[in-house]
Amino acid sequence: MNRSVITGSGATIPDEIVKNTDFIHQQFYSEDGERIPVSNPIIIDKFSKITGIEERRYAPAHLNSSDLATSASALAIEDSGINPETLDFIIAAHNYGDVSHESFQVDTVPSLASRVKHRLGIINPSCVAFDVLFGCPGWIMALMQADAFFKAGMAKRALVIGTETLSRVIDQHDRDSMIFSDGAGAVILEYKDSQGGILSSGALSHTADEIGFLYMGESSKAGYKPGTKFMKMKGRKVYEYALKFVPQAMKECFDKTGMDISELKKIFIHQANEKMDEAIVAAFYKLYGKTMPKDVMPMCIQFLGNSSVATIPTLFDIIRKDKDPDHKIQPGDVVLFASVGAGMNINAICYRYV
Amino acid sequence: MNRSVITGSGATIPDEIVKNTDFIHQQFYSEDGERIPVSNPIIIDKFSKITGIEERRYAPAHLNSSDLATSASALAIEDSGINPETLDFIIAAHNYGDVSHESFQVDTVPSLASRVKHRLGIINPSCVAFDVLFGCPGWIMALMQADAFFKAGMAKRALVIGTETLSRVIDQHDRDSMIFSDGAGAVILEYKDSQGGILSSGALSHTADEIGFLYMGESSKAGYKPGTKFMKMKGRKVYEYALKFVPQAMKECFDKTGMDISELKKIFIHQANEKMDEAIVAAFYKLYGKTMPKDVMPMCIQFLGNSSVATIPTLFDIIRKDKDPDHKIQPGDVVLFASVGAGMNINAICYRYV
Repeated sequence: MNRSVITGSGATIPDEIVKNTDFIHQQFYSEDGERIPVSNPIIIDKFSKITGIEERRYAPAHLNSSDLATSASALAIEDSGINPETLDFIIAAHNYGDVSHESFQVDTVPSLASRVKHRLGIINPSCVAFDVLFGCPGWIMALMQADAFFKAGMAKRALVIGTETLSRVIDQHDRDSMIFSDGAGAVILEYKDSQGGILSSGALSHTADEIGFLYMGESSKAGYKPGTKFMKMKGRKVYEYALKFVPQAMKECFDKTGMDISELKKIFIHQANEKMDEAIVAAFYKLYGKTMPKDVMPMCIQFLGNSSVATIPTLFDIIRKDKDPDHKIQPGDVVLFASVGAGMNINAICYRYV
Repeated sequence: MNRSVITGSGATIPDEIVKNTDFIHQQFYSEDGERIPVSNPIIIDKFSKITGIEERRYAPAHLNSSDLATSASALAIEDSGINPETLDFIIAAHNYGDVSHESFQVDTVPSLASRVKHRLGIINPSCVAFDVLFGCPGWIMALMQADAFFKAGMAKRALVIGTETLSRVIDQHDRDSMIFSDGAGAVILEYKDSQGGILSSGALSHTADEIGFLYMGESSKAGYKPGTKFMKMKGRKVYEYALKFVPQAMKECFDKTGMDISELKKIFIHQANEKMDEAIVAAFYKLYGKTMPKDVMPMCIQFLGNSSVATIPTLFDIIRKDKDPDHKIQPGDVVLFASVGAGMNINAICYRYV
């Protein structure tokens, strides 16, 4: 049976390491513009306990999101062994396009997928390059789009990228700035006769009150860079939303496969916040009357932070290439990809690893 | 046979009319930063002769791209008679997100499709909202994506939007600024048993030298708003590119239907530039050894300018609602949608009107 199978993966983990202690001299302001009346060591310690983040990566000044995407894509192509000229689609998921180091201006023309194709030197005009914006779940959405093109008989092979440089859009006066990071991950997805591949998928958009949970807004410090919009998050709202809807959405996706929950081996969840991610996965197992298995949830947020669309393909690449001693996947293993983010959007894919 | 059928359309044509004479006091500079040594009346007259543009529309200061998209979508929903809560997807094609009147900063989070869903008051979480970036051909690309989701059995009904406020990203010191305009168009696409609907489609991306034909760059006037990037175009390169590749791409799409060229009734081509569009369509017919039929090519660029992704759905809505005395379409008519733009990208859809 033909299914959409990941035949290669790659990730760009930028070199520049930013530790929590690097934020020690920052001035943090609350949402209502008041200086937070707590010392920075206490703020940072609390931050670390909740998010699990010890350090994160920033792209060096001379690289943009499309550059990170290009190197991740080159690795995925090499890993799969395909001739890149045979790609039918290049789909790049991101949120902010290329944001140069000097300015906060977002550059989305031409599309990042076009830029990647250009830099990879792919000439075939039938390799069609476009971008998708769907918040942090954009990379899974792009996989679903490739899967749809395959099933519709419109394509057989796609490069699917998640790339972001959140360090370029964060507000240094907002504690949440410590969460976000830069990175890119990519996979080659092919439609082929296989025991493995995408088994099921699902997506949701909640856009009533949820529309304002992640947005672009002014700095928390009044008067800082007036007229410039930064990435802003209502953290508590996002947490409550995610806990309310993500476990059920994951269950609906997994249950479409008809398998027993005991057959699920790993969950690759968007690296948003360690405590939130653990609570989501625990709640997911609770829906089956189970407790969360100890080794089901690989994490990389501790040392990579939250790079939006890039977290899941990066984490998947780490495990797939056997770079995490605590987590192995074997051919035949059933895994779940799940994400939540700006929109608000949620999605999940159940996948049999081959 | 199930096909993807347009069951409703709508367009937002902003109220603010900007005439060619409104540019009379502008200071125009060439690509190499020199003041153009010709008087403005002559520049404007030449511009008008080539592009066909007499006037264009700008969105009022209080409206953004997502606002134009919302009103166009409401009209399309009303026209189709569907319950918007039954939509499976809202797909918004654009290039620059929301750009506020005061700043050149692009705002893409949350996605424009999310904002449209929010403002339309659609609650159903299974109505999934995302954005597509594919240059000016983005709206046709979004139709192709909806068509793929339908054929893959993943959806049955979508709202497909093209929206743009190019007035917010143009460089007033560049003659090309006179080309661009604001607007939004939308359709409801449904998968249903029909004699009509999408008959064929195709897309191309050329990203070698072509990557730089449309891009974000500094003002033509040295020192104007330093650090701000504007929409820039290498007009001659775009023209040569379009003439070289678009007619053949249109032919490949049309020929997939197996029909004779005499059966093609209308061509809805991206309103890029009147002379270029006429040359493309003439070259398309030449590939069949024919001359271009007199009434095959409705145009609205004369009074609406080039609003990127919005031109084709807007033009289609005008003809569909019988607002152009020179162009009528009847049920059963076969039409071609075709576009070209940043990437560079080209695409086309052959469609039987019902």
